[in-house]
Amino acid sequence: LPSSLALAGARDLQAVVDEAFTAYRGVDDGEVATYIPALAEADPDHFAVAIATVSGEVFSAGDSNRTFAIMSAAKPFTLALLLQQQGPDFVFEHIGVEPTGLPFNALSNIEDPPLAPLNPMVNAGAITAVSLLQAESAGQRWTLLQNWYSAFAGEPLELMDNVYRSVSEGGYRNRAVADLLQLHDRLGASPAETLEVYNRQSSVGVTAKQLAVMGATLASGGSNPLTGQRVLSPELIDEVLAVMMTSGFYDESGWWAYTTGLPAKSGVGGGVVAIVPGRMAIVGYSPRLSPAGNSVRGLLAVQHIARELRLNLFRTAP
Amino acid sequence: LPSSLALAGARDLQAVVDEAFTAYRGVDDGEVATYIPALAEADPDHFAVAIATVSGEVFSAGDSNRTFAIMSAAKPFTLALLLQQQGPDFVFEHIGVEPTGLPFNALSNIEDPPLAPLNPMVNAGAITAVSLLQAESAGQRWTLLQNWYSAFAGEPLELMDNVYRSVSEGGYRNRAVADLLQLHDRLGASPAETLEVYNRQSSVGVTAKQLAVMGATLASGGSNPLTGQRVLSPELIDEVLAVMMTSGFYDESGWWAYTTGLPAKSGVGGGVVAIVPGRMAIVGYSPRLSPAGNSVRGLLAVQHIARELRLNLFRTAP
Amino acid sequence: LPSSLALAGARDLQAVVDEAFTAYRGVDDGEVATYIPALAEADPDHFAVAIATVSGEVFSAGDSNRTFAIMSAAKPFTLALLLQQQGPDFVFEHIGVEPTGLPFNALSNIEDPPLAPLNPMVNAGAITAVSLLQAESAGQRWTLLQNWYSAFAGEPLELMDNVYRSVSEGGYRNRAVADLLQLHDRLGASPAETLEVYNRQSSVGVTAKQLAVMGATLASGGSNPLTGQRVLSPELIDEVLAVMMTSGFYDESGWWAYTTGLPAKSGVGGGVVAIVPGRMAIVGYSPRLSPAGNSVRGLLAVQHIARELRLNLFRTAP
Amino acid sequence: LPSSLALAGARDLQAVVDEAFTAYRGVDDGEVATYIPALAEADPDHFAVAIATVSGEVFSAGDSNRTFAIMSAAKPFTLALLLQQQGPDFVFEHIGVEPTGLPFNALSNIEDPPLAPLNPMVNAGAITAVSLLQAESAGQRWTLLQNWYSAFAGEPLELMDNVYRSVSEGGYRNRAVADLLQLHDRLGASPAETLEVYNRQSSVGVTAKQLAVMGATLASGGSNPLTGQRVLSPELIDEVLAVMMTSGFYDESGWWAYTTGLPAKSGVGGGVVAIVPGRMAIVGYSPRLSPAGNSVRGLLAVQHIARELRLNLFRTAP
Repeated sequence: LPSSLALAGARDLQAVVDEAFTAYRGVDDGEVATYIPALAEADPDHFAVAIATVSGEVFSAGDSNRTFAIMSAAKPFTLALLLQQQGPDFVFEHIGVEPTGLPFNALSNIEDPPLAPLNPMVNAGAITAVSLLQAESAGQRWTLLQNWYSAFAGEPLELMDNVYRSVSEGGYRNRAVADLLQLHDRLGASPAETLEVYNRQSSVGVTAKQLAVMGATLASGGSNPLTGQRVLSPELIDEVLAVMMTSGFYDESGWWAYTTGLPAKSGVGGGVVAIVPGRMAIVGYSPRLSPAGNSVRGLLAVQHIARELRLNLFRTAP
Repeated sequence: LPSSLALAGARDLQAVVDEAFTAYRGVDDGEVATYIPALAEADPDHFAVAIATVSGEVFSAGDSNRTFAIMSAAKPFTLALLLQQQGPDFVFEHIGVEPTGLPFNALSNIEDPPLAPLNPMVNAGAITAVSLLQAESAGQRWTLLQNWYSAFAGEPLELMDNVYRSVSEGGYRNRAVADLLQLHDRLGASPAETLEVYNRQSSVGVTAKQLAVMGATLASGGSNPLTGQRVLSPELIDEVLAVMMTSGFYDESGWWAYTTGLPAKSGVGGGVVAIVPGRMAIVGYSPRLSPAGNSVRGLLAVQHIARELRLNLFRTAP
Repeated sequence: LPSSLALAGARDLQAVVDEAFTAYRGVDDGEVATYIPALAEADPDHFAVAIATVSGEVFSAGDSNRTFAIMSAAKPFTLALLLQQQGPDFVFEHIGVEPTGLPFNALSNIEDPPLAPLNPMVNAGAITAVSLLQAESAGQRWTLLQNWYSAFAGEPLELMDNVYRSVSEGGYRNRAVADLLQLHDRLGASPAETLEVYNRQSSVGVTAKQLAVMGATLASGGSNPLTGQRVLSPELIDEVLAVMMTSGFYDESGWWAYTTGLPAKSGVGGGVVAIVPGRMAIVGYSPRLSPAGNSVRGLLAVQHIARELRLNLFRTAP
Repeated sequence: LPSSLALAGARDLQAVVDEAFTAYRGVDDGEVATYIPALAEADPDHFAVAIATVSGEVFSAGDSNRTFAIMSAAKPFTLALLLQQQGPDFVFEHIGVEPTGLPFNALSNIEDPPLAPLNPMVNAGAITAVSLLQAESAGQRWTLLQNWYSAFAGEPLELMDNVYRSVSEGGYRNRAVADLLQLHDRLGASPAETLEVYNRQSSVGVTAKQLAVMGATLASGGSNPLTGQRVLSPELIDEVLAVMMTSGFYDESGWWAYTTGLPAKSGVGGGVVAIVPGRMAIVGYSPRLSPAGNSVRGLLAVQHIARELRLNLFRTAP
């Protein structure tokens, strides 16, 4: 192990978590998402920082037991399930893995001739991913996902009903996306069934600690570090993390790689999770979002920890 | 060090290089680039594989002393010089670092309102980078770059005159790119001066071994492993490698990260160089290109070595 | 009157209709629309030609009493109703009147910043137009339109139930269009109500003779030449015809103006109607469509008549 | 003749010209074009209105003998020459006639697959048109055009040297356009030769009266109403006017047809010319431009006259 991590033992990790929490708790830039009414009810002052290591230690500060909507931070885990069911070639061929250079909710790449890659981290690709999951019935599609997420977290995760209702109303852009995908024969289930499960997926409630453990299950090679359960084959995690690295922050993915160098994913619920392969996951949670829809304090906290612990994957110096 | 690399000592690295060479020497898919006449003269059967480590060892097989045009594989090194001169914020603000989701020679991102990021790995951003280098005179701009590349290689690199002449004729798309950049006040030098230096940059001749040493200078934290010369500040290499990871293969960058997980860059001259931070650089060279403009045998060789040595940066399992 | 029309009295008009019918009845290029199943059932050999003059004479040949689906040929008449209700400025501001340079079912112009014109002749603008009609109830929206069309035809027009059912199933692109319009606050009614009426509008059955009388009501300045009923204010017809001229054939509107020089509109049901201001309307009907979705024999017949009677609006010579 | 024009005899035309001049001389909205320095020197208060009839009468008010740069108002006349040399099919196939839905200086339609129509009224298509003129030498290409324009005007037209020098410097967007056209094998002459002649074409000096006579030569069926010289075959004028109608005002062409209903073309030199087939041409000239680059007072004057004389081509009522 590099000396930086050897030094970063249990006491140090708690210290750096506390440090990140203290450093950014006073930042009140950004705005709570309002386009989904239930998200607008979140307390803008909530703030949590958490680390979960591959050896099962969890360090946290702030509102780390507060439940929030996972939103787009669910996408890497759905991708993981599709990879487990269908393999990397299937995902590459049916969805694609290229950065789109477009906002998360773009439509144009659905229409480009012949049929452009969609990427599982943006809405069009993530909706496609949900539809392509092998399920024996409409009802089972959601159960499958809920159980899958829970296995990553090491405990049962529940739907936030008020978020689900709120996400389901309106959502005209995602409806348009699903209709276009259907038009181009890219969905494995009906637009209605697909969107229902996709909306449920977005409405899963997690705490910062739970999201950190979900991330640590990826970081550890697919075994949940708390329960010991093997959730995902280790050889599929490379692909999940690669897609997070190149596309996890939509049209700010390049900026994130340039400044932080870790695979990560954020959600408009205020959560962000970064993966350090073989080591840990780092989570920040706070509802105020940047104009691009990322948690302001969440990003700052994750970047702080990555910098202090020298976790940038592109780092060449000791 | 992970056991995989501990095992991969000098003898093993030569063995894996030989293995990659033998495995793919019979592949004759792809076509030599013809849109630049001088490149069309390359012998399609040339094939070389090379590794240079951060400790200064070089392993190679095939035509590894054969000189070829560096073409776009020069872009990361020009980016490195601009970072050294102006810093990461300047590059972020004046060029941008987002994957474009577009082909290497796209124009539309130059025009998108207000002014979209260009990315130093695609032509528009790379041309901008050349123009923004601080130089005391038009003539010095090229000298500066040539010396910079030579410091990375550890020996003087020369212009391939026939390639330079061939690249300079025609080139209507790059002329259009430079004119548009000038129109939008993004260039630091005139379109003519910029294109002349950009065309010279593309026409630098390298061998597979030299390109591997150039890469190893990045992998080592900025010190040339052969000459010991410190070329680049170590803290700037994170940024170079991040941009290579998210954008090094244009609109196939996502695919490369998904399958290989290493920062890399290819050129239509047939070279490809991948960087393993803190460890080594891997080079493949062969003129036959895939439809996307990447060396067929070059990519196969690099992927083979990365797989055998377990070098994927996203790897979580031992 | 120019001598050409003075000569083209009643006998001559029947002669030129017969001539056009005879000249193109043997043409069997093109394919019946299949993406709407009910349209695919049309007999591809049906062919009708009709002229209705502003003085109430109707000349026809072929299957001119055969009912077919009006489809997009309804769009100018819906535009006329919206103009009557809301005036030209409202249409200009809420829909727009620019040629889009895009196919009839394009999405990109809905999304362009800030909000690009849609044009009432393409689906996005035509769907918007339906939603902006002032109606006292959801049910009345359709009744209003049906009565309006019937007033143009001078007799009651009926819904083709099988077409309506067929158009209503599927239709994923129009659903996506309506969802996007709703997202951008451009609809005056819900997407569901709007699409239902839009689909009914497309499913109105007309004969070639009826469509010719509808067109003649425009040509005459808004009075139905058969019934004498004033349907539309004369000063609003300039705007209807202008939009037909610049956009009536989608991304072939320029070609139509270049070759024929008359405001016209076609539908994938196989009908096409051209307006000669102050004089007449010319209709061709035949189900086989060109790749762009226009009736092959319909266009040929209308062009033949326009050429023979020298009706091109851009004509400068006697 | 409709009664409106029968009434509009010589005395009436002078009266309506005077009326338009008086009505808008106080309008000082808009800005003189500054992106071409020589145009910025124009006196913003200059204002002229002129009508030239097909019988050779010329009516004018204001600065109607003041010379200004024809700029894009030259495009229809170059199109006319290409039609005369090569015929309508050639223009349709090699340039295209569709409205682009894009600004006058757009690039994207040059690149759309396979190769989208360009339209002779926008820069890309107009530059192509210049290159496709049959000329025996580079020098003759310009002489040919200058003589052609002069025949339309009925007297020799001269290059405005200061405008030509000013247009030739800079012009980065047109250089990019020409480079892209060359890249796609669409030019009939080198980019340099083409741009030189295109820039000369734009720099031709005309007065409002001269431009009106040029327009009247189109309106009359191709014979100059002052000199009696047959310049253009009458059957080709339909095509010129059709393209002006659908595309003469770039991305405001739909608006112009909707409000005015006449084929017309404007230039950033401040001139605008509208054609009334078989009757007359109407010219407005004033340097202050709307944001879209059209002469504010010029448009108002032409619209006033068209409205007063009931010249809208789509007019159905007497």
